[in-house]
Amino acid sequence: MTDHIQFSEIKQALVLLDQRILPNREEYFLCKTTQDVIYALQTMVVRGAPAIGVTAAYGCWLALRQAMDQAGPGWRVRLAELLRDLEDARPTAVNLRWAVELMRADAAAAGEIGAEELSARWLAKAKAVHAEDIEINKAMGRFGAEAIDDGDTVMTHCNAGALATAGYGTALGVIRAAIEQGKRIKVIANETRPFLQGARLTAYELHKDGIDVTVACDNAVGHLMKRGMVQKVVVGADRIAANGDAANKIGTYTVALAAKAHGVPFYVAAPASTFDLRIQSGDEIPIEDRTPREVTHIGDHQITPEGVPVYNYAFDVTPAGLISGIATEKGLLRAPYVQAIKEKIGSV
Amino acid sequence: MTDHIQFSEIKQALVLLDQRILPNREEYFLCKTTQDVIYALQTMVVRGAPAIGVTAAYGCWLALRQAMDQAGPGWRVRLAELLRDLEDARPTAVNLRWAVELMRADAAAAGEIGAEELSARWLAKAKAVHAEDIEINKAMGRFGAEAIDDGDTVMTHCNAGALATAGYGTALGVIRAAIEQGKRIKVIANETRPFLQGARLTAYELHKDGIDVTVACDNAVGHLMKRGMVQKVVVGADRIAANGDAANKIGTYTVALAAKAHGVPFYVAAPASTFDLRIQSGDEIPIEDRTPREVTHIGDHQITPEGVPVYNYAFDVTPAGLISGIATEKGLLRAPYVQAIKEKIGSV
Repeated sequence: MTDHIQFSEIKQALVLLDQRILPNREEYFLCKTTQDVIYALQTMVVRGAPAIGVTAAYGCWLALRQAMDQAGPGWRVRLAELLRDLEDARPTAVNLRWAVELMRADAAAAGEIGAEELSARWLAKAKAVHAEDIEINKAMGRFGAEAIDDGDTVMTHCNAGALATAGYGTALGVIRAAIEQGKRIKVIANETRPFLQGARLTAYELHKDGIDVTVACDNAVGHLMKRGMVQKVVVGADRIAANGDAANKIGTYTVALAAKAHGVPFYVAAPASTFDLRIQSGDEIPIEDRTPREVTHIGDHQITPEGVPVYNYAFDVTPAGLISGIATEKGLLRAPYVQAIKEKIGSV
Repeated sequence: MTDHIQFSEIKQALVLLDQRILPNREEYFLCKTTQDVIYALQTMVVRGAPAIGVTAAYGCWLALRQAMDQAGPGWRVRLAELLRDLEDARPTAVNLRWAVELMRADAAAAGEIGAEELSARWLAKAKAVHAEDIEINKAMGRFGAEAIDDGDTVMTHCNAGALATAGYGTALGVIRAAIEQGKRIKVIANETRPFLQGARLTAYELHKDGIDVTVACDNAVGHLMKRGMVQKVVVGADRIAANGDAANKIGTYTVALAAKAHGVPFYVAAPASTFDLRIQSGDEIPIEDRTPREVTHIGDHQITPEGVPVYNYAFDVTPAGLISGIATEKGLLRAPYVQAIKEKIGSV
């Protein structure tokens, strides 16, 4: 389950598997401009913090090509504008800004080179970010799998899988690694309203890989845990503060509360690029408020009465105190997180 | 917002507002046989514990008419069969069995009367059950409203409203009563997957009555409480054990856990007919496991990949320890519930 983000040499474009219409149809979305990438990010053609980072890296290269076309010798000014638009496409996942800043830093390191030279350099850089992400996930998976026991049923929320990364996955990478270690694992995928990443994407990629997965509505979490049907929870993250507070898909915090009440260990899996050490706690993480239509409609089918407002906060924050461990490519971090993060991540 | 359950004298039939297709269209479903009633209960044309009770009371009368047509002088034997089918239509709500037993007891009290005489008696009895339910809800609402403060935002799960009763509602009756007392109340309706009773029915009936209602996905519960957006929770119940454990729509228990974690008072509103004093705790309440299609499809739109199994437990049990009070038509019960239930309900 990889290759949902591809760079096409022939088309000189970014080709994305359109996650809005999975699992029923596999269609691709072509990005040739910065605006295409922003649209793809905002409408969630592609989503998941690490996948957003990889997409943004290619997006920077597309922005550069666009700046060259539009501004000629003034390309640096136009590029700066396009990169600002790109990094503002979505507010919560820090990997978006991380990728743009990585490319900016690369340009700064290269000094006063020409546009074509920077273009070659950035395309190579984007491809490297892409390739490294899979290796990062595999390392993270191995560290995280230490916490998973043979016979466990693991609950996951949203999709922190191959489709949320360059491939392999963060939370689902931990599950894949546990299975590669010979452990027998079953997965419960919370459907994850409103965008249904669990029902559509997690179920799709695990089923495709032959991994035992069952979908449950988000509100069944407490009942399933009370019946002893869940041994571990593993989720991804979109941004982690210096104290270990983790923003992830709306509903993650509710799962963490239920896990705490039932003594079910709750793990987060996320690469070092997800940590935002400039913020001290989860209170400082901006929470994206998305379009009401995601809640009021499923497909073209309207489920709420006309005129009734809805809440559509896309993320919530799970406090570090509810987190049993954070799997990263640098190790499985344990509390106290301030210290563990400073030691393992702070040097990034 | 009443009259969703009507007895048609002209058609000699039970006419139900079809809750499967609300809020987009208002269509009616006609029941002329016991099988029609069972179908309506099982597919949730009508749902909600008290509404199930009222429907079942009319259903007993329809069973009697059917037994008279089918079995002539042997009507009593045929009636007994039909009543057994009717009371087994759904397993969790005790009000179904309560209504059938009420009619059986009425027949026993009447002695060896003829079928036509019993028919007249049962139709009057069903109408009385119907009319009384609204009065019960109003009394319950007044007791429950004592616990609601001016300015509160009240979260509710599923639909325990006019549409779940003969009218007025249990949980929504508490909200209506608080508003009638002059309190300014806002409501958050959890959408309540998979059948979306909150998004479709609670939003529909409150919006129609001009009550301020906002719909949220079920998984937002923790986040909304953490932000201080919820002052009280009020839900209905399908069966309450002698110790106060309450079965209600799947997700209620998860809401109760989040409420506990945030110090938000959690109330149940249910009539005396919802208490099942033959069972000592919630562990003995059977939990209905419904068709996967409710989870895999929304309308005709399939959301999960083909071949992936789902869980569809329709109810869960909230332990009495998480319940701040139980509003009934006999008063607002407080812990210790074993004693309060024995005193107020045990004499029914």
